[in-house]
Amino acid sequence: MKLSARNVLKGRVRSVVKGQTTAHVKIELTGGAVITASITNEAVDDLNLREGDEASAVIKASDVIVAK
Amino acid sequence: MKLSARNVLKGRVRSVVKGQTTAHVKIELTGGAVITASITNEAVDDLNLREGDEASAVIKASDVIVAK
Amino acid sequence: MKLSARNVLKGRVRSVVKGQTTAHVKIELTGGAVITASITNEAVDDLNLREGDEASAVIKASDVIVAK
Amino acid sequence: MKLSARNVLKGRVRSVVKGQTTAHVKIELTGGAVITASITNEAVDDLNLREGDEASAVIKASDVIVAK
Amino acid sequence: MKLSARNVLKGRVRSVVKGQTTAHVKIELTGGAVITASITNEAVDDLNLREGDEASAVIKASDVIVAK
Amino acid sequence: MKLSARNVLKGRVRSVVKGQTTAHVKIELTGGAVITASITNEAVDDLNLREGDEASAVIKASDVIVAK
Repeated sequence: MKLSARNVLKGRVRSVVKGQTTAHVKIELTGGAVITASITNEAVDDLNLREGDEASAVIKASDVIVAK
Repeated sequence: MKLSARNVLKGRVRSVVKGQTTAHVKIELTGGAVITASITNEAVDDLNLREGDEASAVIKASDVIVAK
Repeated sequence: MKLSARNVLKGRVRSVVKGQTTAHVKIELTGGAVITASITNEAVDDLNLREGDEASAVIKASDVIVAK
Repeated sequence: MKLSARNVLKGRVRSVVKGQTTAHVKIELTGGAVITASITNEAVDDLNLREGDEASAVIKASDVIVAK
Repeated sequence: MKLSARNVLKGRVRSVVKGQTTAHVKIELTGGAVITASITNEAVDDLNLREGDEASAVIKASDVIVAK
Repeated sequence: MKLSARNVLKGRVRSVVKGQTTAHVKIELTGGAVITASITNEAVDDLNLREGDEASAVIKASDVIVAK
């Protein structure tokens, strides 16, 4: 499967914190940057996401703001 | 100014391509990954964005999808 | 590859219209509904998207508004 | 009221699960596909959303990723 | 029709600028602030949007970043 | 720091309600309109957001839907 999203950034899961319905997942990219994703608990279970897993952060180009 | 967005990724502008109303900007992060942002032409002019500029990609946690 | 996005809706590409930087793609879902996606021209080329292709619309739960 | 959002998909509420501040709502479209929306609890109360209600999923074209 | 989106801000259309596929619309809110929306040309035609029209800016709570 | 986001609306924090992982923040704009933002608890702590603070709501043009 290939995605139209321009940003598929490879890394490794550093933490998974579940709330009542929404979880926060931190992915450390190969370059060292850490990306926080807010996803459903259901998605965490469905992907069986755990610390140490290889995973990617997928982001649409239209969701990126540029700061200078 | 501090932002609630969890992801503020520092890098350098690699390219700026303007369309009629929307522009695509590529930012190379310190770690080597490249992020594409789709922003208005107006924003490109307003920030005076040019290849080589130091810039950051700002992304809300709720806009990040995790792939595994 | 599995995605945290809760909505992965299968269908078939009905049309692809490219602008200068941004393209609009219509996908007809199995049930008959048509979903419009606004993606980069670059993505259209990268996925080699054409009318008639099997494709899915991927949408994060946090991007869905409910109307009643 | 008419919306600029290109995607207004009609269906019926299948479930409403509230968290502490955020709720997940599943809408079954006429064609059979199920769409998950993550909205505020406040919105659930304001729309008085309940299982069985007729409701639509509203999605901007720029929030749709295409997978092939 | 009622929307789950927490932000429905009333105002008046100040300008509509169409690109090849994407248009930029400026809405002046009652309080004086101006909001820019990037929508499809198709939506502009569908709503017959013109300068001076009464219109609202609809924004999901999860799409708002807080700066301080 | 300057942002590509076209909408940076100044106001004052009216309320901050934390859930288990996600918080809802209401900002009253100078013109009187109130904007609700859904952000991470982590962001609330990081910005030390409290009722009465001066703060801005930052919104990308592509996240705004027009209703007429």
